Amino acid sequence: MSDARPGTFYGIGVGPGDPELMTLKAHRLISASRIVAYPAPDSGESFARAIAADAIRPDAVEIPMIVPMRVERFPAQDVYAGAAETIAGHLAAGEDVAVLCEGDPFFYGSFMYLFARLSERFACEVVPGVSSLAACSAALTRPLTARNDVLTVIPGPLPDDDLRARINGAEAVAIMKVGRHLPRLRALLDAMDLTAQAGYVERASLREQVVLPLADAPDAAPYFSMILIYKGNDPWLTP
Amino acid sequence: MSDARPGTFYGIGVGPGDPELMTLKAHRLISASRIVAYPAPDSGESFARAIAADAIRPDAVEIPMIVPMRVERFPAQDVYAGAAETIAGHLAAGEDVAVLCEGDPFFYGSFMYLFARLSERFACEVVPGVSSLAACSAALTRPLTARNDVLTVIPGPLPDDDLRARINGAEAVAIMKVGRHLPRLRALLDAMDLTAQAGYVERASLREQVVLPLADAPDAAPYFSMILIYKGNDPWLTP
Repeated sequence: MSDARPGTFYGIGVGPGDPELMTLKAHRLISASRIVAYPAPDSGESFARAIAADAIRPDAVEIPMIVPMRVERFPAQDVYAGAAETIAGHLAAGEDVAVLCEGDPFFYGSFMYLFARLSERFACEVVPGVSSLAACSAALTRPLTARNDVLTVIPGPLPDDDLRARINGAEAVAIMKVGRHLPRLRALLDAMDLTAQAGYVERASLREQVVLPLADAPDAAPYFSMILIYKGNDPWLTP
Repeated sequence: MSDARPGTFYGIGVGPGDPELMTLKAHRLISASRIVAYPAPDSGESFARAIAADAIRPDAVEIPMIVPMRVERFPAQDVYAGAAETIAGHLAAGEDVAVLCEGDPFFYGSFMYLFARLSERFACEVVPGVSSLAACSAALTRPLTARNDVLTVIPGPLPDDDLRARINGAEAVAIMKVGRHLPRLRALLDAMDLTAQAGYVERASLREQVVLPLADAPDAAPYFSMILIYKGNDPWLTP
């Protein structure tokens, strides 16, 4: 196979959690893939793999990228460097490789670590997916943005001053990666008088989904949790 | 049927344009729907309907919401008020109604005009979809956000001073609804020395998709076009 035309490197968004929120394209490509890679924790199941499980062929070669789950640390680059070389070997041999990505590959995804290493050497196609942001606003059953609103997406680990400035500059705000920052974020939003306009969602679209007004959210939030804030007043009805 | 339990009102994201970027759930629900509503221009085809066409049952009752296409005007509310009453009649009679929405229903969608009128009277479920934002970053084959980046989504019609302030406060910026504002936006981004980091996409995920560096974009952009800006430097490789 080494004289073969190189394969294509697919970054496939599998959506926020509910397997039915995969796209038809993601389902088709994964079902056809002989080589499937995905991030996985050092103990327990890969979330991306679990979402796509029913589409993965029984005879697929699987490449789990074991990323130690450390609080607030960006993942060890050696894991991605090693996986990139394994994947490069398959691509060079003419095989396509499907990389499964939670949500959308380019929206705060670890896919970028492989992409940075492989996209200049091999043909790459990214299949967009439903983001956790879309899933959270659907879960809250509340429009995220309307008309000429500015939407700002902010990672919760940022310091309070940054958060405050950026929240002030937008009509709609999503705070991602809430996790252990929830008590601090809640205090900040209280001080900004925004708690009443804020919703809390964890594990959007999964059976375990939790949707609450921010005031009622638990202090111990999982990593996959989000706060959505709408600062306008009844913005949807008046023309 | 008037004694029936009321139906459910579904807002279904059909994705950015490629019918294969519909979710499995959107496809299943549309295929099962006996009543399907969608926005349509006063001449020509409905984009949302065209995306979902293969899933719509031949015997479905279709409710087009004819929205006159005026430049930069928010749609006439009487169209949505009338459609909401028609839809309410079906729901009250016990029928489910599927409203087809381009992209994601709650991401700058006209769905909110129906949602505002019906969601308190009837059970409502929103099915999130792949947004134009995700489709544009996939089309550019470039990560949109990484790690603790702040992403800001800004409608192009906003005045220059607003745009400038909001672009300054983010690492990643998406300017939506570019259309006839392109020459002005390009001049602004030139003045901010950001043109080299900006990509232009029109009609993402469709066969007619155009992907260009902003410097090469045509002056006459369609409404469905977007500018994506990444202000960081090689942010994806260094840990």
